[in-house]
Amino acid sequence: MTIIDGKAISEQIKQEIATEVAEIVAAGGKRPHLAAILVGHDGGSETYVANKVKACRVCGFTSTLIRYEADVTEDELLAGIRQLNQDADVDGFIVQLPLPRHLSEQKVIETIDYRKDVDGFHPINVGRMAIGLPCYVSATPNGILELLKRYEIATSGKKCVVLGRSNIVGKPMATLMMQKTYPGDATVTVCHSHSADLVKECREADILIAAMGQPNFVKADMVKEGAVVIDVGTTRVPDASRKSGFKLTGDVLFEEVAPHCSYITPVPGGVGPMTIVSLMKNTLLAGKKAIYP
Amino acid sequence: MTIIDGKAISEQIKQEIATEVAEIVAAGGKRPHLAAILVGHDGGSETYVANKVKACRVCGFTSTLIRYEADVTEDELLAGIRQLNQDADVDGFIVQLPLPRHLSEQKVIETIDYRKDVDGFHPINVGRMAIGLPCYVSATPNGILELLKRYEIATSGKKCVVLGRSNIVGKPMATLMMQKTYPGDATVTVCHSHSADLVKECREADILIAAMGQPNFVKADMVKEGAVVIDVGTTRVPDASRKSGFKLTGDVLFEEVAPHCSYITPVPGGVGPMTIVSLMKNTLLAGKKAIYP
Repeated sequence: MTIIDGKAISEQIKQEIATEVAEIVAAGGKRPHLAAILVGHDGGSETYVANKVKACRVCGFTSTLIRYEADVTEDELLAGIRQLNQDADVDGFIVQLPLPRHLSEQKVIETIDYRKDVDGFHPINVGRMAIGLPCYVSATPNGILELLKRYEIATSGKKCVVLGRSNIVGKPMATLMMQKTYPGDATVTVCHSHSADLVKECREADILIAAMGQPNFVKADMVKEGAVVIDVGTTRVPDASRKSGFKLTGDVLFEEVAPHCSYITPVPGGVGPMTIVSLMKNTLLAGKKAIYP
Repeated sequence: MTIIDGKAISEQIKQEIATEVAEIVAAGGKRPHLAAILVGHDGGSETYVANKVKACRVCGFTSTLIRYEADVTEDELLAGIRQLNQDADVDGFIVQLPLPRHLSEQKVIETIDYRKDVDGFHPINVGRMAIGLPCYVSATPNGILELLKRYEIATSGKKCVVLGRSNIVGKPMATLMMQKTYPGDATVTVCHSHSADLVKECREADILIAAMGQPNFVKADMVKEGAVVIDVGTTRVPDASRKSGFKLTGDVLFEEVAPHCSYITPVPGGVGPMTIVSLMKNTLLAGKKAIYP
């Protein structure tokens, strides 16, 4: 059994990006610039954005953090987005989700210029991904593909079961795993809370990707011997013994499941760091105008 | 076993559309206008376009057929598309596929204004469909949903297996069948030519949607007793005994499979007529500016 080291892979990729950025800048090119909009002071969001800013530094990117208070009006926020759309120095930007309830996430996403949408959430990027055209692929699915690739895990013809059908993980993950390419070309099943035979489906999976957001949902009896298990869950479960007061908990009961796997990602240190690195890769593509002119 | 009568349902829907159009026109509204571009003289394409024009007449739509010879240049064709984009009287239009090899289908699709893209092939419509936003859903998957709805076939929690992963049927069909809505909310598996265990997957399907384009591929031993079988295949198989010289053949070996089904679509007269009706429904939506202002 191999524990997939997302942290090590992500560090390696950041170094690869930093090298390329140094070359670009040395050749007189523009340093990629990522901007992030953060609304309010949610603890999780603060951490995610701080990690993204830190990753930008390692990659040699310029980064800008733009903060709004939680009571910002939708009009103000959309005006801020339009300003970033216009700002020629900003190559790509993100709006950290979730947003306070009075703000429409969908309206926010659609207001972002798709050519700067390095999160890959805009309908044009989602559609181009489904069709198989060059685009910004959303970060978590792309990070998982990268892990499969770096560990040279076979996918063609394999049975891949995706747990969860969210717009940012489950659905794009399923679409990517069925494309005629590597990693991909798998037989893909998407299960969710209403699936009648979820346990049976999981048991047949060669590759199981858990993205339901239900801590420790996947138990040993749901995993085939020798399966590849990718854990996308990152729920903050209260834990009084920790300074932070919580424990980041995956969708997979790791201790129980791991012994049965050929490969498994831990939480933390598996998919999480790869998600940020995917954002960095998209920002590099944006800086190079590699996807859209 | 019930044979799903796509022809009867499609006639019924066309009458419903015609009634609504008559009301719109009586109230002083605009008669919906569909334009179709046909390149060359491929027999299949000629038939499809002729049937679409005929359906427009039944629905009370204005229709325009624009023909180009097979040697039209890409620039000429794209110019023609841009003209339709600008034409305020044209509510929606299609370019009949496939195109001669020297023309890029993807470039053609992306040149169509997504607000007039009643085939639902433009990346914006594909992406909005995946996210679950209002859009033009592509015709064949939408026609299949309509059949499931009209026959009140249960889908929630059921195992739905889609054979084929094309951009116009397999992939959107899978996405629609997993959405949190009816028809949908199913456990969805997509199989294709590289699937290791295709027969086993098929045997477990409560709903089997065959869209591989391989005549008579699905045999009786691939279908669970009581399954719903939807046949999207329409291959022209040579048949000297017919005046046309061919027989329209589905992906399902009907005579053998039908006795085991609870519901099955025939070929012809199943999904085919529904595809055209979906295009009519999208054109009505376009005429009413119901999706995009």
